[in-house]
Amino acid sequence: MPNPTAAMLVIGDEILSGRTRDANMHFLAQELTKQGIDLKEVRIVSDDAAAIERSVKSLSEDYEHVFTSGGIGPTHDDITADCIARAFGKTIDIRADARALLEAHYEKSGLELNAARLRMARIPESATLIENPVSTAPGFTLENVHVMAGVPSVFQAMVASVLPTLTGGAPLLSQTLRVDRGEGDIAATLSSLAKDFGDLSIGCYPFQINGVFGANVVIRGTEGGRIDAAVTRLARDLEQ
Amino acid sequence: MPNPTAAMLVIGDEILSGRTRDANMHFLAQELTKQGIDLKEVRIVSDDAAAIERSVKSLSEDYEHVFTSGGIGPTHDDITADCIARAFGKTIDIRADARALLEAHYEKSGLELNAARLRMARIPESATLIENPVSTAPGFTLENVHVMAGVPSVFQAMVASVLPTLTGGAPLLSQTLRVDRGEGDIAATLSSLAKDFGDLSIGCYPFQINGVFGANVVIRGTEGGRIDAAVTRLARDLEQ
Repeated sequence: MPNPTAAMLVIGDEILSGRTRDANMHFLAQELTKQGIDLKEVRIVSDDAAAIERSVKSLSEDYEHVFTSGGIGPTHDDITADCIARAFGKTIDIRADARALLEAHYEKSGLELNAARLRMARIPESATLIENPVSTAPGFTLENVHVMAGVPSVFQAMVASVLPTLTGGAPLLSQTLRVDRGEGDIAATLSSLAKDFGDLSIGCYPFQINGVFGANVVIRGTEGGRIDAAVTRLARDLEQ
Repeated sequence: MPNPTAAMLVIGDEILSGRTRDANMHFLAQELTKQGIDLKEVRIVSDDAAAIERSVKSLSEDYEHVFTSGGIGPTHDDITADCIARAFGKTIDIRADARALLEAHYEKSGLELNAARLRMARIPESATLIENPVSTAPGFTLENVHVMAGVPSVFQAMVASVLPTLTGGAPLLSQTLRVDRGEGDIAATLSSLAKDFGDLSIGCYPFQINGVFGANVVIRGTEGGRIDAAVTRLARDLEQ
């Protein structure tokens, strides 16, 4: 059976403007690979309601899981929860279970649970809360969409809360063979290897260090024995 | 007049599997911001023909410029050029102008221009070549899509070749005010500021350092005077 598929939707003007470099995508990609879930597509959109709604709908139809990051804080530009509710035709309001979490948290911390912070208890009807052990304000899962915070420490904690609840496939294994030749020299060899090992994915990632061209050949699959066989064959082919 | 809009399509299994962290997106985002072109969306898809074709079509319709990175090398998984040609209903073959560039380059370097390397001269009819001062094999522009290499040094050189040919808008300026308070405390103030400065974009990016919550408020716009006014007003509002 093929692995479950996933997509990620990153919501954030700050990445599109080049102000910050996304860290969540790289983290999620690695976690999903370990779990045997194939990340097939990532989209980054700005804090724009129409763009968020359109993207989440389309990704939710095309993939088994969708993970979002960003836009669920207390400020005016945090519109993700409302957009997700609209995308699925659900109502959204301050929900008692989320409110209770925030009340307990802010009482303990001595900070005021003001109107802005209460916005973080806006959760669509029928959504399941995602635990946030870092700063309490929860994420949520609605249908196949897991809605999480953009702050990396919170995002990572939420991913850790969600992933164990999902059924993964066989984890993706990989081996890398570094070749100190330009990829144009080894392309024919790789092509023939790819034909004979159709169950594996064979990627060639060129690099250039001090003017010397080389390539990392990464062979991925779910069966260690097949990857071993392909790497052995490649090493032999390249020696000839 | 609003700034021109742009999207980026990153083609690469290695990013989706978490093996490498994308660097090109961050670079392009910064360059476009300087040039006054608004990057509105980024998509990352795998080396999959259907996904590439579908994404490039959709982005090309929705935005004024599309920049792609990855998948134009000599190996079997380099399928971008063919996919772009198909997306626009164009034929593609080894083109004389691109072939001549490669012939000159490989003759000089003493390497063989073999069949694999010749694939890098496959350019869709009617496309314009994008110069590659790093390793010669050109990118190309077809309609509003600029097709570039994934290797960061080559990608950056190609961006430098393409950007001067595009008409930008007013460069986006920004100022950042660091606030050592949780964003929940300043949300109402920001909301009121956003209402009064509708021509500016006001983003709030929370952080947590050693257990202390704070936020960077970034105010962006094309008129320096307006940004100054907004920052002054914000600083005053927060002092009260």
